[in-house]
Amino acid sequence: MNRIITIGREFGSGGREFGRRLAEALGFAYYDQEIISEIAKRISLSEQYVEAIVEHQPSFSFPIHIGRSFYPAVNPAFEQTMAVYQEQARIITQMAAKSNCVIVGRCADYILKEYRPFRIFIYADMESKIKRCREKGPEDEKLTDKELRQKITGIDKKRAKYYEVYTGHAWGDKLNFDLCINTTQTVIKEIVPAIARLFV
Amino acid sequence: MNRIITIGREFGSGGREFGRRLAEALGFAYYDQEIISEIAKRISLSEQYVEAIVEHQPSFSFPIHIGRSFYPAVNPAFEQTMAVYQEQARIITQMAAKSNCVIVGRCADYILKEYRPFRIFIYADMESKIKRCREKGPEDEKLTDKELRQKITGIDKKRAKYYEVYTGHAWGDKLNFDLCINTTQTVIKEIVPAIARLFV
Repeated sequence: MNRIITIGREFGSGGREFGRRLAEALGFAYYDQEIISEIAKRISLSEQYVEAIVEHQPSFSFPIHIGRSFYPAVNPAFEQTMAVYQEQARIITQMAAKSNCVIVGRCADYILKEYRPFRIFIYADMESKIKRCREKGPEDEKLTDKELRQKITGIDKKRAKYYEVYTGHAWGDKLNFDLCINTTQTVIKEIVPAIARLFV
Repeated sequence: MNRIITIGREFGSGGREFGRRLAEALGFAYYDQEIISEIAKRISLSEQYVEAIVEHQPSFSFPIHIGRSFYPAVNPAFEQTMAVYQEQARIITQMAAKSNCVIVGRCADYILKEYRPFRIFIYADMESKIKRCREKGPEDEKLTDKELRQKITGIDKKRAKYYEVYTGHAWGDKLNFDLCINTTQTVIKEIVPAIARLFV
């Protein structure tokens, strides 16, 4: 069975950087939310083209929803979100079956529980998350500290809700992880070699 | 400044074994609750002897309380507990000043916060804590699983209360630690070399 490492993370804690560096150190494949969403989108896009061609209908409603969301449903928005989740879950399972990998986000710890992944959670205190966001990119440049704090809290609230809806577990609860790493006082690239050693 | 590693732990999670092995791997001094209590007891014993001799009084009240508890107090039990805590805090600070060390329990993470210790928390799920307790010692042999679960929960409740009273922080909150390690699916001696690498 392939070696799977899943990473949950607070926004601004450096979870993606940690995941990327860990994958690189181990020579594992690396997948994160953006990659998984992009793949899901492309698959649904191509599936919808196929559908449109098969049924001789014009393609419609871009940006694309995935097939399942066109079924009649009591709550179409929920139905669509569920379908996206299921599609991503399918992709994540394929990734895990294909090779050793590090997967960041997307409830991969829960989706792959039968693979017994090593589950890492990356977190930090608010001050260092604000600092990291400011260093990382220009898009937060105009935000005050208060606004940035609200943004961080807001994104993590959404992550918590997403995780809880699909897994039934509390997001960030340490009992759902094998290792929780606080990056507050940490230079990420300095701790990666030690953590990588857990897997060799 | 010396390198200090503090370890908080749930009862039955293997925190002491982890601490001992980590200290051994790093060549650091190792202190835990029993050692600290023993030192505190011996110091208070000798201090009381001195006091008794100086004041020409017979020594009294063995097992010994520490000096401070003989002062008049509104709540003598609380006063005594506080005095024991303060005595242990003094000893822990001396240990940290003396050499690199690993200290298990006794709020050492909080007491030594000015030393910026690396703070580890060791935990596990209930099933594996029960298993570990059964493997460890004969004293729990006669307990049913239910009784053992109650014992574990009871000890951790006391630890949580002790920690919260003296530090004002929630016990086991991952934000108060740099690294939280779940030993549920772990052979402790196998992870120690990787974790030790964080400090070399």
